[in-house]
Amino acid sequence: MRKELTALRGAMERAGVQWYMVPTDDFHASEYVGEYFMSRAWVSGFTGSAGTLLVGKDWAGLWTDGRYFLQAESQLKDSGITLMKSGEPEVPTLTAFLSERLRPGDVLGFDGRTVSELQGRRLKETAREAEACVRFDLDLVGEIWTDRPALSAEPAFELPITATGKSRGEKLALIREALRRENAQTLVLSSLMDICWLMNLRGGDVACTPVILSYLMLTQERAVLFLNERVLSPEIRAHLAEDGVETAPYGAVEEEIRRLAAGSRVWMDLGVVNCALYAAVPPEVEVLNRANPTVLPKAVKNPTEVANFREAHIKDGVAVTRLMCWLKKNIGRIPMDEINVAEKLEGLRREQPGYLMPSFHPIVAWGPHGAIIHYSATPESNWAVQPRSFLLADTGGHYLEGTTDITRTFAVGPLTEEERELYTRVLMGHLRLGAARFRYGCTGMQLDCLAHGPLWDLAMDYNHGTGHGVGYVLSVHEGPQGFRWRQVSPTPPAVLEPGMVTSDEPGIYLEGKFGVRLENLTVVCEDVTNEFGRFLHLEYLTLVPFDLDAVDPALMDERDRRCLNAYHARVRETLLPRLADPEERAWLTEATRPI
Amino acid sequence: MRKELTALRGAMERAGVQWYMVPTDDFHASEYVGEYFMSRAWVSGFTGSAGTLLVGKDWAGLWTDGRYFLQAESQLKDSGITLMKSGEPEVPTLTAFLSERLRPGDVLGFDGRTVSELQGRRLKETAREAEACVRFDLDLVGEIWTDRPALSAEPAFELPITATGKSRGEKLALIREALRRENAQTLVLSSLMDICWLMNLRGGDVACTPVILSYLMLTQERAVLFLNERVLSPEIRAHLAEDGVETAPYGAVEEEIRRLAAGSRVWMDLGVVNCALYAAVPPEVEVLNRANPTVLPKAVKNPTEVANFREAHIKDGVAVTRLMCWLKKNIGRIPMDEINVAEKLEGLRREQPGYLMPSFHPIVAWGPHGAIIHYSATPESNWAVQPRSFLLADTGGHYLEGTTDITRTFAVGPLTEEERELYTRVLMGHLRLGAARFRYGCTGMQLDCLAHGPLWDLAMDYNHGTGHGVGYVLSVHEGPQGFRWRQVSPTPPAVLEPGMVTSDEPGIYLEGKFGVRLENLTVVCEDVTNEFGRFLHLEYLTLVPFDLDAVDPALMDERDRRCLNAYHARVRETLLPRLADPEERAWLTEATRPI
Repeated sequence: MRKELTALRGAMERAGVQWYMVPTDDFHASEYVGEYFMSRAWVSGFTGSAGTLLVGKDWAGLWTDGRYFLQAESQLKDSGITLMKSGEPEVPTLTAFLSERLRPGDVLGFDGRTVSELQGRRLKETAREAEACVRFDLDLVGEIWTDRPALSAEPAFELPITATGKSRGEKLALIREALRRENAQTLVLSSLMDICWLMNLRGGDVACTPVILSYLMLTQERAVLFLNERVLSPEIRAHLAEDGVETAPYGAVEEEIRRLAAGSRVWMDLGVVNCALYAAVPPEVEVLNRANPTVLPKAVKNPTEVANFREAHIKDGVAVTRLMCWLKKNIGRIPMDEINVAEKLEGLRREQPGYLMPSFHPIVAWGPHGAIIHYSATPESNWAVQPRSFLLADTGGHYLEGTTDITRTFAVGPLTEEERELYTRVLMGHLRLGAARFRYGCTGMQLDCLAHGPLWDLAMDYNHGTGHGVGYVLSVHEGPQGFRWRQVSPTPPAVLEPGMVTSDEPGIYLEGKFGVRLENLTVVCEDVTNEFGRFLHLEYLTLVPFDLDAVDPALMDERDRRCLNAYHARVRETLLPRLADPEERAWLTEATRPI
Repeated sequence: MRKELTALRGAMERAGVQWYMVPTDDFHASEYVGEYFMSRAWVSGFTGSAGTLLVGKDWAGLWTDGRYFLQAESQLKDSGITLMKSGEPEVPTLTAFLSERLRPGDVLGFDGRTVSELQGRRLKETAREAEACVRFDLDLVGEIWTDRPALSAEPAFELPITATGKSRGEKLALIREALRRENAQTLVLSSLMDICWLMNLRGGDVACTPVILSYLMLTQERAVLFLNERVLSPEIRAHLAEDGVETAPYGAVEEEIRRLAAGSRVWMDLGVVNCALYAAVPPEVEVLNRANPTVLPKAVKNPTEVANFREAHIKDGVAVTRLMCWLKKNIGRIPMDEINVAEKLEGLRREQPGYLMPSFHPIVAWGPHGAIIHYSATPESNWAVQPRSFLLADTGGHYLEGTTDITRTFAVGPLTEEERELYTRVLMGHLRLGAARFRYGCTGMQLDCLAHGPLWDLAMDYNHGTGHGVGYVLSVHEGPQGFRWRQVSPTPPAVLEPGMVTSDEPGIYLEGKFGVRLENLTVVCEDVTNEFGRFLHLEYLTLVPFDLDAVDPALMDERDRRCLNAYHARVRETLLPRLADPEERAWLTEATRPI
């Protein structure tokens, strides 16, 4: 039994709660969280990026999904915590479990700052049906976690207009216009990506996502940025003041919300705003609950951003292509393992000017590890790269000019026929989606079957989306568009607009054998508009060869081959001038030969 | 000025209404309407199948859509009625027009039996906003149309269990179970297709749709069929009685609805139920407004129905193939025109046992007429078939074993390069959709881009859906599934279920030049279920050659050619044993040769 779990039960008894829930979230519904927010890991010992701990008096369980079953099983050993495998048929959801186990009069506690208002409502409803109740003002882990790290307060930096293409003032005017249209007097932003996009600021408070812990309140007259004011240099403060942006302490946002004028209307996305913040809204204030007005202009990159994105991908293409060349020349000659290949690539990226940091934790997986979709090598799991089968590398970086996310699967030795056939099929799907010309009005849901088709033809499939939006030096996963055939949320993915940057990443995963995933980022471009309608197409931003050693041209349709050859010609022509080493130049020329 | 319009204005003055609306609908929201219901045509002189007439004291207008602009322009000449071209940018919708023109105190009248409750609500809302009001109890055309045809009362006939696969009793039990699940005590059906499906009856009261003018009220204890009781033979009456189905006069349904028990719940699809009927619901009765529980079981054909559908399509395939052979042998030798080619085909269908009637008004269109999507030849428009370009024939029939809907575009002489290229492109899209294997859970919206792809690649397109559901000896257009990329209604098309019959009909239309449309019906079939998921595929029901004289194999991918050859082999093997004439047999063998 972990002593942290025992300590938490003590705090629960003092607070008079029978059940306590510890989710994996900061106060902003961020995808990754800073160390201050790792309560669930601290109590349970499980360090995966997703999971929810529920502690009762005599029982404790941790819900997490398939990608973490192995890791959680090992980390929860002897902890006194049961692993609840989300998605397995016999495992109830956390809500279903609570419905079953809450007794009349029970109290379910959690820190409402780490739970969105919509999630909080579902928990309250579950409790109400069991005649139990909820307390969301309890940070019980905070009470017992004596050496808890401080809230991150990394220095902020400002993106120049050459990076953002739109000034802070222009963006503020745009969002204020949206407020006027909806007759909302106030906007409360709590999504860090949206705040940083609007402010043209970046920071370092969340791993892989260069954002600043902050809130923003916007009216027609005022813009107040709530944050640890020490992260701002005097220069940035002056720039903010010029644009009429005031600053206030991070913790002051609740009090400001309490003072909203009776009869006014406040815009809050309740899928993002946490329930403690929502609870501060005075009862006479109307809440407009919908996606933040920043979401669409953030997703639709302006021409400056698109031009920068292209440049970032050339730099990234140089780094990944050099890695590929190094791999191909040294496999079997130099010892390699999953971790040191990731480090090698990180080193090559760092050689590129303007490189900031990885955009997510790298996935470098050899052989059977490639079949684990969200595999991340640890010193314990780290495998040597053997000279056969595939090495799958899903990595990405933030540059001042934009964010990259690329997956290549490399043949690191002889392949089986099955490996070659499935690599080719995945590549065909990848190329068919990438080559699509389509009518304006399509969402990624209407185009997704192009990527699945070559696998569906074999009655095979991959169970993840085909593509996600990508932020500009923000989160590498961004809405509102995406490629997926299945409608997972009540609203379908957004209509594809010129300037949207989205990944194209089909794959195939054979458990215990190997995995293939091939990922480029794409940008939506205007195509022709004629009497038949307005057409758009995708342009690949990513520029790195696909591994011809793994391609069986005979399986491809002529059009697939044409697309591949055209892409490789573009890769060659764009990257050759950026490669200094004659050996690398010769290698690239050969690696991008027409087939 | 038409005298009917003047007479209507007289009736309006007597009734004290300033505006009167005459839609094109029967009391059941049927797609086609019987002669009794052709009030709009009688008043305006415009005979197209869609359009709404609005008459004011000094102005009258008729709204119709693009397919009827030419016809309406000619038929409305000197009528005193303005043609309102729906969809043209400068033309207001009827509702927008009313918003603009209704004055406080005005009365807008219409016959509420010909307007669905949901449409009626929009009209009431429009009137309310203009401080006007609505009277929906006025059949003013009925008052002045002295020689109005009687309500149709064609004899009903019963489909045997070998046709329907499910007895009336089984269907009643299924629908009663749905009522129990939704805690609804009563179901009011007013859609004629749903009533006839449930009763295993057919009739002849609507052109091309063999249904009976009727209503049905269902509870756990009773089933009451409201209709002109003379259409039922004593034998059918006896069969109905055996299944506990009572009959009552057509007009008695309103009174029966008025007697619904207070506190009970009645299921009514308010997009279908007319507003006069809805107005009869007592205020203490709760209305459950959703798609009728008959819709899905009617759309998902059972194994007997699927087997019958296959047989109906073999018969229809023989008829259309014989027409194709006759056309190819006689073009330029026998005078042909659009109308007599349609008659020739109707004659060939009538030779097939079990043939009942056309399933819709045939579209047979030569050359530039083929570019008019809903063209229907009239004696005035009828063109000779000249020995060049295309003859497009979109026709279908009802057989006791099922319903067909097929479009073929025939080269009736030399083709231009453009004609051949676009025919081939449409065929490629048609074949790609037809060959799709896909995951269970897909709707037609996720697959539709397969059909559009080859045209989108050329920045060309067709502006109609790719496919509609097809009823079993009911309406040739049936929901809830369909193939289309654009979400036209708030609900997407239904998930494709094994047994659903849907058309696959891409096309291309070059105004003033030619049109191509290629249509087969498909049925959804189970495919494999394995560790990757459950897969489905489509099977073509329609069996008629595509015109190889119009195909350019060099434009097709290898897979397209394989699909076409496999389809043609199936056509040949299935139809040859059904063709007696050696010349036709030889022709078919040649027409289905591999390319």
